[in-house]
Amino acid sequence: MKKIAIVTAGGMGTRMGAKLPKQFLLLSGKPVLWHTLNAFINAFEDIDFVLVVPDDFVNTATVLASELNISQKTVIVVGGPTRFDSVKNGLATIKESAIVFVHDGVRCLVSPDLIKRCYVQAIEKGSAIPAVASTDSVRIAMEDDHRVIDRAKVSIIQTPQTFKSELILPAFNQSYQERFTDEATVVESTGNRVYLIEGDYQNIKITRPIDLIIAEQIIADRVS
Amino acid sequence: MKKIAIVTAGGMGTRMGAKLPKQFLLLSGKPVLWHTLNAFINAFEDIDFVLVVPDDFVNTATVLASELNISQKTVIVVGGPTRFDSVKNGLATIKESAIVFVHDGVRCLVSPDLIKRCYVQAIEKGSAIPAVASTDSVRIAMEDDHRVIDRAKVSIIQTPQTFKSELILPAFNQSYQERFTDEATVVESTGNRVYLIEGDYQNIKITRPIDLIIAEQIIADRVS
Repeated sequence: MKKIAIVTAGGMGTRMGAKLPKQFLLLSGKPVLWHTLNAFINAFEDIDFVLVVPDDFVNTATVLASELNISQKTVIVVGGPTRFDSVKNGLATIKESAIVFVHDGVRCLVSPDLIKRCYVQAIEKGSAIPAVASTDSVRIAMEDDHRVIDRAKVSIIQTPQTFKSELILPAFNQSYQERFTDEATVVESTGNRVYLIEGDYQNIKITRPIDLIIAEQIIADRVS
Repeated sequence: MKKIAIVTAGGMGTRMGAKLPKQFLLLSGKPVLWHTLNAFINAFEDIDFVLVVPDDFVNTATVLASELNISQKTVIVVGGPTRFDSVKNGLATIKESAIVFVHDGVRCLVSPDLIKRCYVQAIEKGSAIPAVASTDSVRIAMEDDHRVIDRAKVSIIQTPQTFKSELILPAFNQSYQERFTDEATVVESTGNRVYLIEGDYQNIKITRPIDLIIAEQIIADRVS
């Protein structure tokens, strides 16, 4: 089945304190986004890409796609003010039935194995939302207090959030609502349930400077 | 005020696939537990220690305390079958009013700054439970489905869970209940509320082999 990865790299990221958005910072000599795209290329030779980038980085993304030899199957679109808008812009380029992966560009350590498993489950169940169990205790803020929740019941959600195009395309025709914190919540609001899949503890998001150092180490460890 | 750190290193850890419990594995040339204890020593010169270790590691812990020059102010006790039992064994050695830090031995990157802040808040409010906001979406398992919860309301709990001895000692006189997943839940069950404090994203737990590599990198980064 046709496979399309919408990779969102629209954020300008302020927590890194760097001049470049974090998806373009160098990690083991290549931009973060290079690693992300490479994982999808390694999962599927026949996958197409939609890169959602900030306005000023269209050229950078074009060069990156060319470097990775995926120019012919890559569409570059400009991100919107929210994740919802950015993904919506990406989805607007999809004209045929496909399995659609929506992936955070800064989750550059995603494994080809996870991507493949998401694909298989999305074909079977319509969706695959990677999740890992919390390794720490978790509390939820209440009105002016907080209560502990059973850790075994807590899932930390990752990407690629993966869907049949028939599920995700109509869902994004809705107007934006504040509760749309990821693609799964958008699809759920159409009355469809979504299905979790075992994620990967190494599938971290690069958000702080230390994450780059950690990612570099994980990459070195994988190579050795 | 008197300060006592109960450092729990009772687990035998199976996820590491190593022969030694993870708290004794080497990290930058020293056992994980060495780093943990050293952070408390760096926070307070006048702190006492209660080390809770597996039966077979009493000698190892004794040598470690001697190496760190804290033998005179360290009591070593043997852990129990649950975290509750291990902490209870540790608390049984406390005979005077104190601020009590209960800390996971495998959280070896805890900063002296966090330890000091916990101390100050525990004096003021009775408790200090370090927590960080979740950086990922979170879902809670329901009967046969799951629902997303507002990420802003989710706190990931760390240690040292810090209390006035007057709060934590009586709480541990109760019988064990399954909902006692950490010290905060034990104290809460006596009708006292507990107070969170801003934790630290680097205050990770060593649970998988990759965590050792990450920790080594964070330590190298701190030194440089």
